Amino acid sequence: MHENAPLSGHVTVLRLGHRPGRDDRMTTHVALTARALGAERALLVGDTTGARDTVRDITDRFGGPFVVEAVDEWRPLVREWEGNVVHLTMYGERVQDVEREIRASVVDSEDPLLVVVGSQKVPFEVYDAADWNVAVTNQPHSEVAGLAVFLDRLFEGRELSREWDDADKRVVPMETGKRVVDAASETVEE
Amino acid sequence: MHENAPLSGHVTVLRLGHRPGRDDRMTTHVALTARALGAERALLVGDTTGARDTVRDITDRFGGPFVVEAVDEWRPLVREWEGNVVHLTMYGERVQDVEREIRASVVDSEDPLLVVVGSQKVPFEVYDAADWNVAVTNQPHSEVAGLAVFLDRLFEGRELSREWDDADKRVVPMETGKRVVDAASETVEE
Repeated sequence: MHENAPLSGHVTVLRLGHRPGRDDRMTTHVALTARALGAERALLVGDTTGARDTVRDITDRFGGPFVVEAVDEWRPLVREWEGNVVHLTMYGERVQDVEREIRASVVDSEDPLLVVVGSQKVPFEVYDAADWNVAVTNQPHSEVAGLAVFLDRLFEGRELSREWDDADKRVVPMETGKRVVDAASETVEE
Repeated sequence: MHENAPLSGHVTVLRLGHRPGRDDRMTTHVALTARALGAERALLVGDTTGARDTVRDITDRFGGPFVVEAVDEWRPLVREWEGNVVHLTMYGERVQDVEREIRASVVDSEDPLLVVVGSQKVPFEVYDAADWNVAVTNQPHSEVAGLAVFLDRLFEGRELSREWDDADKRVVPMETGKRVVDAASETVEE
């Protein structure tokens, strides 16, 4: 695989249940986690323009491709999705039991996967519409943590080596300290 | 391994940089993620009694063992830690490059591991004190996501099958819907 090639399996993350003000940071973290860990798109339902703008700014600086959009309605999206739907919930099947099956249906296929991440109460029709309701432990913790572990397992870690296009900045891994380089001039120098 | 045995490798998560009000939910999510994904303790620095109380309440209902404490000072903790220290930061070495080495030093050893999770600016002495500065991608995303992926990789997924002691409630994994049972009566029935 060419390192700049998109990960096989196109993943869109749909964030439901955003409460303006109270959930701004969590929704931003959901979308940034989607971007960093291999999804190609995040759709944020409701009054989420603040989170959207933050994530667009990060994508402008650190690269893409990654699309983030604020959307008004999730029901038509879920209903008309052409591909499989995973709903992450602490009530679902254990991720370690279903990840292989999901991977087989998604990775190396052309079908896009919709990963639904809720906040507090998620309407029953989401459970019903999902091809898999998946739990990253059946314990209460964090929708951000659940999404992160799910994506890392879905892509089997390949998302960690992704390269980024059109970045202004690139962080160079360091044993100690911080090093950020100008990604554009780097490309010219090579 | 007996399923109720603690995971080998004793992990404490130290949450730095909490800003009261603004960070309450993120700090709660850091601690709940620590609990759900195999750490045995979370130490929350600063005015974090709200987050602490939420996590204690979850532990009372869903089981343990898990310890969460609000602490005033982190410097003596880091300085006097008897074991290895990992600092999670987007500027660090790539988790996929160092996880084996960390695992070898921690899992199946008696040494406790301190995992430091910052918020915004982390003082340089933390980078310096850490045995490993570790990045879950060198991209900006979420300290909750970084912690989740780090713990899942450290324990190689074994934390997902952990059983819980002294729980009042247990969630039964379901294909669709929600099922929560009384854990105490379950034990009596068996």
